[in-house]
Amino acid sequence: MRPTPIITLLTDFGTADYFVGAMKGAILSVSSGAIIIDITHEIPPHDIQAGAFTLAAAYKTFPAGTIHVAVVDPGVGSTRRPILVQAGEHFFVGPDNGLFGFVYESEAATNVRVFHLNRAEYFRAEVSETFHGRDVFAPVAGALANGIAPFDLGDEIKDYVRQASIAPHALADGRIEASVIHIDRFGNCVTNLTRRELTDHQIKRGVRLVINNQTVTSIRRFFAEETDTRGELFAVWGSAGFLEIVAFRDSAARLLDIRRGQQVILQSANTAALKQSLEQ
Amino acid sequence: MRPTPIITLLTDFGTADYFVGAMKGAILSVSSGAIIIDITHEIPPHDIQAGAFTLAAAYKTFPAGTIHVAVVDPGVGSTRRPILVQAGEHFFVGPDNGLFGFVYESEAATNVRVFHLNRAEYFRAEVSETFHGRDVFAPVAGALANGIAPFDLGDEIKDYVRQASIAPHALADGRIEASVIHIDRFGNCVTNLTRRELTDHQIKRGVRLVINNQTVTSIRRFFAEETDTRGELFAVWGSAGFLEIVAFRDSAARLLDIRRGQQVILQSANTAALKQSLEQ
Amino acid sequence: MRPTPIITLLTDFGTADYFVGAMKGAILSVSSGAIIIDITHEIPPHDIQAGAFTLAAAYKTFPAGTIHVAVVDPGVGSTRRPILVQAGEHFFVGPDNGLFGFVYESEAATNVRVFHLNRAEYFRAEVSETFHGRDVFAPVAGALANGIAPFDLGDEIKDYVRQASIAPHALADGRIEASVIHIDRFGNCVTNLTRRELTDHQIKRGVRLVINNQTVTSIRRFFAEETDTRGELFAVWGSAGFLEIVAFRDSAARLLDIRRGQQVILQSANTAALKQSLEQ
Repeated sequence: MRPTPIITLLTDFGTADYFVGAMKGAILSVSSGAIIIDITHEIPPHDIQAGAFTLAAAYKTFPAGTIHVAVVDPGVGSTRRPILVQAGEHFFVGPDNGLFGFVYESEAATNVRVFHLNRAEYFRAEVSETFHGRDVFAPVAGALANGIAPFDLGDEIKDYVRQASIAPHALADGRIEASVIHIDRFGNCVTNLTRRELTDHQIKRGVRLVINNQTVTSIRRFFAEETDTRGELFAVWGSAGFLEIVAFRDSAARLLDIRRGQQVILQSANTAALKQSLEQ
Repeated sequence: MRPTPIITLLTDFGTADYFVGAMKGAILSVSSGAIIIDITHEIPPHDIQAGAFTLAAAYKTFPAGTIHVAVVDPGVGSTRRPILVQAGEHFFVGPDNGLFGFVYESEAATNVRVFHLNRAEYFRAEVSETFHGRDVFAPVAGALANGIAPFDLGDEIKDYVRQASIAPHALADGRIEASVIHIDRFGNCVTNLTRRELTDHQIKRGVRLVINNQTVTSIRRFFAEETDTRGELFAVWGSAGFLEIVAFRDSAARLLDIRRGQQVILQSANTAALKQSLEQ
Repeated sequence: MRPTPIITLLTDFGTADYFVGAMKGAILSVSSGAIIIDITHEIPPHDIQAGAFTLAAAYKTFPAGTIHVAVVDPGVGSTRRPILVQAGEHFFVGPDNGLFGFVYESEAATNVRVFHLNRAEYFRAEVSETFHGRDVFAPVAGALANGIAPFDLGDEIKDYVRQASIAPHALADGRIEASVIHIDRFGNCVTNLTRRELTDHQIKRGVRLVINNQTVTSIRRFFAEETDTRGELFAVWGSAGFLEIVAFRDSAARLLDIRRGQQVILQSANTAALKQSLEQ
């Protein structure tokens, strides 16, 4: 017996409209036994990068075979292609606009196959120009859950849209220029710094982060320690694998007036000390 | 074997309180295998018309036999009746206050049967005066999912509350007076104009929409085309079957300062031209 | 055959981030057949008391055997213990910080057992310091759903954190000092007054509530009666079993400028009359 298929949803539709309900109905009309799981519908409208980040941070916790339907789709109704991505042990259904960019980066290239969804017999009978979530992506996910093979749902393509990498880059003077790629509900600021740019060895030798003309010098292991004072700023490895700038029981984003996209400079504490002494 | 029953929820409860969780628990306590699907809980508090519109736009995508529990119920605890509606292939459970008005309109009258839920043995043991969602509607939906027949849950009635139609009406001079019945998360303004009032033939001959002393002349097929400029206004057939006033990658509601309920005048471009020339 | 396990989620994570999706994935990776039900993710960040109230108001509607995962966890990463609570017919998984305080109060003490989750083999392979929801609580709930016994998941403890009772207390002059413990989406103000402090007999003899220097004298059975005027203030027994101060089709919180935690004085109408006459 085939295991019950899990279908996750990630959209920028919000939860106040009928959009999400209509997508769920369209899935269940094709695959009545599917288990539908909401990741989020609160991606900022049309913000493909935010959707890509959130999807990347969530999908790997799901079991092999899970189908992830992601719709952040400002180009709906235009020529952008609907696609199905098979990446490692997961499937992804959505628009070909870079929304799966982090997935392409995090899975081995040889394990990524992308199909242009062009078999209209798997779409809803009438496809609206404005709601491919309901009329294309949902029924295709349902078909996939029912066991239809990816190559029966569309032709494989190689020229899909890869999102520009969000990796930080090294400056000429040895510092690293990074940025804030996400701010969460608690005001924690997720940077694009990973353990590739910042090793434990470097942390031990001393580093500092400069953002908005303010400096964070403490990189800590824990969010909470009994001795801390509210509002104390530090950096910590977040659960998505990126370095986060946080404040103890407070919002770092509010305290430092940080917005998404803001520059973060990583430098060694010694360099900084040196640099400061040179400037005086 | 009976298929797994699907029960959808649509309320104005929001998602911050215990209300929705308590309803789900009450359903599962009666029908532990039911698949519960949220349509939305963000209907503006006590706004029956908004709930009716959202339900109408979502329910038909679900498979036959789905049970839709809808609770927008300012009259809870008063004499308004709890009802069960069997309409076409769908079931609806909720208050008799017009919330199912669009369902009555969109299904053939001969396919609509309404039952007054007056069999207390299918309610929760103790029914609070303020939370029929949990104590009446949820357990009745569970009983229905378990296979109890509608006529065992209540007596059929004919004098249920039909909501006034929201159809636009023709003015003496040939223009049509319509209105904005919904504004979605993206600022798209859903009017009550359908293809009955506005045929493709009329569109080809030229029409214009006047709202807030501003005029929209372009009725387009697509939400997105490469050549468009942000903020450009046009009308497009929305996915719920109504004409929507939208702005390319922007909020039409914000740009035109449109609120729900606002008047929209539909007139032929020629009439308008004629009228303007007469006025000069 | 074991029944399908139900796992509910209650957190302060909001629904805009990847947190909730990641928890669901982590549960399904352990127990792929689990039915996951959202109670709410909108507990105000780090507000343990609000989480405790909402959980208490919702959990009893679920069937016996339900597993409730609750995460309001400002101390994540510190020494606070992860626990599993078996209380009556329900299970609870989350941090040992008082979040289950109302559960301990509402179940007979002999029916409450608490286990310190210290068997890392049931956690995710890599446990982050900042996201025990995904890495500890979710997989443990999955294991419990799979039939692992509580005593295999951790050692029983007796020194768990009991939350201070929120019961009102009697003043020297016979009045009762209560407080607002929750304000819901409709602006209804839930007090901590139950039928223990306020009997039907007392209500018949006449009582009044004083809040923010304003007085509510009417305690009613219904939320809605045809004869009411919008904004009329009264108290009513809420669906969670507490007395609520409400306004007919309006927000009592807004009308009376009530905030959570605000003092409410309950006194007999006669005492009040007496007191007023004495003061003149």
